[in-house]
Amino acid sequence: MVLGKVVGTVWATRKDEELVGMKLLIVRHLDLQYRFREAFVVAVDTVQAGVGDVVLVCSGSSARQTAQTKNKPVDAVIMAVVDKLDVSD
Amino acid sequence: MVLGKVVGTVWATRKDEELVGMKLLIVRHLDLQYRFREAFVVAVDTVQAGVGDVVLVCSGSSARQTAQTKNKPVDAVIMAVVDKLDVSD
Amino acid sequence: MVLGKVVGTVWATRKDEELVGMKLLIVRHLDLQYRFREAFVVAVDTVQAGVGDVVLVCSGSSARQTAQTKNKPVDAVIMAVVDKLDVSD
Amino acid sequence: MVLGKVVGTVWATRKDEELVGMKLLIVRHLDLQYRFREAFVVAVDTVQAGVGDVVLVCSGSSARQTAQTKNKPVDAVIMAVVDKLDVSD
Amino acid sequence: MVLGKVVGTVWATRKDEELVGMKLLIVRHLDLQYRFREAFVVAVDTVQAGVGDVVLVCSGSSARQTAQTKNKPVDAVIMAVVDKLDVSD
Repeated sequence: MVLGKVVGTVWATRKDEELVGMKLLIVRHLDLQYRFREAFVVAVDTVQAGVGDVVLVCSGSSARQTAQTKNKPVDAVIMAVVDKLDVSD
Repeated sequence: MVLGKVVGTVWATRKDEELVGMKLLIVRHLDLQYRFREAFVVAVDTVQAGVGDVVLVCSGSSARQTAQTKNKPVDAVIMAVVDKLDVSD
Repeated sequence: MVLGKVVGTVWATRKDEELVGMKLLIVRHLDLQYRFREAFVVAVDTVQAGVGDVVLVCSGSSARQTAQTKNKPVDAVIMAVVDKLDVSD
Repeated sequence: MVLGKVVGTVWATRKDEELVGMKLLIVRHLDLQYRFREAFVVAVDTVQAGVGDVVLVCSGSSARQTAQTKNKPVDAVIMAVVDKLDVSD
Repeated sequence: MVLGKVVGTVWATRKDEELVGMKLLIVRHLDLQYRFREAFVVAVDTVQAGVGDVVLVCSGSSARQTAQTKNKPVDAVIMAVVDKLDVSD
């Protein structure tokens, strides 16, 4: 999974009907010191994440293994809100 | 999903028969300020997107989770047209 | 899908038996001005592509969604020969 | 698979219910001389790995092919602890 | 598929039980002039490849489409030994 921070929301009226009602959040990648990296991804929220939350994003077919995203055209999902990182390197 | 902008169309007469009738659009990646990034992708359109539209592209096996792309050799699909980004970083 | 140009062939006698008889082509990535990029991929040909052809390559599990590649250890397939790009950016 | 070293743990209380009880480890990529590379990934541990261990990480849908991760929103799993690399280049 | 050269072996006693008996080889990516690139991958061997062999590596879910790797946590497999590249660019 990728570590990231929610920085915003995508508004899209015209979309695949399977996506109606889903919250599409913008997640910028973070490094282990919580600094923003260049990359970002648009992910479906399944854990009530909000702007400012540090989260984990799961990608690919694994992004469809939640109750909300099953069988939908979704390739990235927020599946955890991070409380804390314990890093010793 | 990846944020991008539709910049053109691919014409291909000789192709897998499962792709006949599909619209193949060229989508250049965007950053959060709507500036073009280097990368681009060719994606099947499922939401009537056109040149100039800002869109979301879904990749991998998830690109086959739409009515039009099911079981087809397609690894990228446009599944939403973006109205607006709310970004606060 | 990725835009590329066929630049050669891979010869491999010793291989997974499911691959016997398949044509393995070398495809270099192209930018939208048809210039070569650094990256290349080895892809199975399913549309009678040849050296010099501009093609689309489909990757991942979607590469197994053709009659020839179904259930085979193949992660990239040429599924279209490009006639023309219409780009307006 | 990717070669990496476990450098820490992610704590996340709010998460997909399928992930409850799973250990989420931070794995930094290594080169063949065991030097850290820039990239890292958060992976589910299935082999009792700990901080300091050199491991292999399996990604994508293959990360769901273990007893613990089957059908779960997990895209990276530690499936081996490395004893030794034999490299001759 | 990715072009690479086998440069070594990974020894791992503690691993997912589905991996017992599998040969884990280190494959460095090659360019079309057989020069090493920075990237490498650890792949399961299914074609009796050895150190020094130029090979093709298949990744993702397609890596599980061989008799030996079916349903296993494996995301990269060597499925061909390359005899020769015909490149004309």
